[in-house]
Amino acid sequence: MWRQREITLRPRPRGFHLVTREVVEALPELRGLRVGLAHLHILHTSASLTLNENASPDVRDDFESWFDESVPEDAPYWTHRIEGSDDMPAHIKASVLGPSLSLPIRDGRLALGTWQGIYLCEHRDRGGARSLVATLMGEG
Amino acid sequence: MWRQREITLRPRPRGFHLVTREVVEALPELRGLRVGLAHLHILHTSASLTLNENASPDVRDDFESWFDESVPEDAPYWTHRIEGSDDMPAHIKASVLGPSLSLPIRDGRLALGTWQGIYLCEHRDRGGARSLVATLMGEG
Amino acid sequence: MWRQREITLRPRPRGFHLVTREVVEALPELRGLRVGLAHLHILHTSASLTLNENASPDVRDDFESWFDESVPEDAPYWTHRIEGSDDMPAHIKASVLGPSLSLPIRDGRLALGTWQGIYLCEHRDRGGARSLVATLMGEG
Repeated sequence: MWRQREITLRPRPRGFHLVTREVVEALPELRGLRVGLAHLHILHTSASLTLNENASPDVRDDFESWFDESVPEDAPYWTHRIEGSDDMPAHIKASVLGPSLSLPIRDGRLALGTWQGIYLCEHRDRGGARSLVATLMGEG
Repeated sequence: MWRQREITLRPRPRGFHLVTREVVEALPELRGLRVGLAHLHILHTSASLTLNENASPDVRDDFESWFDESVPEDAPYWTHRIEGSDDMPAHIKASVLGPSLSLPIRDGRLALGTWQGIYLCEHRDRGGARSLVATLMGEG
Repeated sequence: MWRQREITLRPRPRGFHLVTREVVEALPELRGLRVGLAHLHILHTSASLTLNENASPDVRDDFESWFDESVPEDAPYWTHRIEGSDDMPAHIKASVLGPSLSLPIRDGRLALGTWQGIYLCEHRDRGGARSLVATLMGEG
């Protein structure tokens, strides 16, 4: 079984946002899969997806701190500056974290660890709504 | 064909560990696939999986050095400190490297490069046993 | 439907190279898939694949600058030095960016964002030709 959907995530401020529930609710076909894979792909180059701790908001704040420190907006070597000082760092962060997640499906649900949640990583100050292509595959 | 298994990797010290043989031996169904994909997903947020050089132990030591230098335990901006000084860096490292690997299968074996091996990246001082969900898909 | 091909990318200098067209032209079977996934896997540990901005060459230059700054060749902690000063940084960069991409397929084409292109990330000074295993899966 193969199913594909486009999911639009509402605009969020720069930072790391837990979107597990929003994504799962947009994928009712998950329930029909006994074993499979859910592939989530973000259609942008300045936002990304990752999986991390789903309980403490301070973990997500610390993600933002580390990435801002490690990919500085004012680095002297940036040459691509025409789209704003948050743009080139956003491209780097997007590739370090990656544009997609492949998540195992078992018995109609995502087979994630207890503490794993899906993060939308918004690297622009004002990135707007973000679109995902979700591809579900497996057997019922 | 779709098959799914949970694999438990024994506790290892903080660092980068080559686990290719251990993972492959836990997946006898690999041999039945002519072409396909093996998806390995770690069920934790402070350990990760990557693929890298499988011959020299000093490469794995240098991974540990670079990650410790780049994600320092004593950074002044960490706010999530209640689980120990190795915890928040572990979350960052886990997302930079990622929770899963998708590996091509050809003629009943993983189609990896000569030098590619699977690393378990243990980012906690004492992370304990680590669980993977392995999903095999393809045609026989 | 499952199809697998090996693709050889010609030698390129150290840096980030846009290879979308080259990869797509090597995969004529894409057109036969209504919905699916294209998995691209690089068979090396000192080069990697990522998805990022496909229009401005200065973005790709800035990728090289950031990675060179963040994974310095002259770091005092490297112990794996026998293959040259660009080797160990290449291994780290390869794992930070990752060895593979999974890309959604829709109506016979890669379903990428407007600005998303496939980068071959060559981390060695002289890496030579690079081989990919491309695995296509889905339904027609």
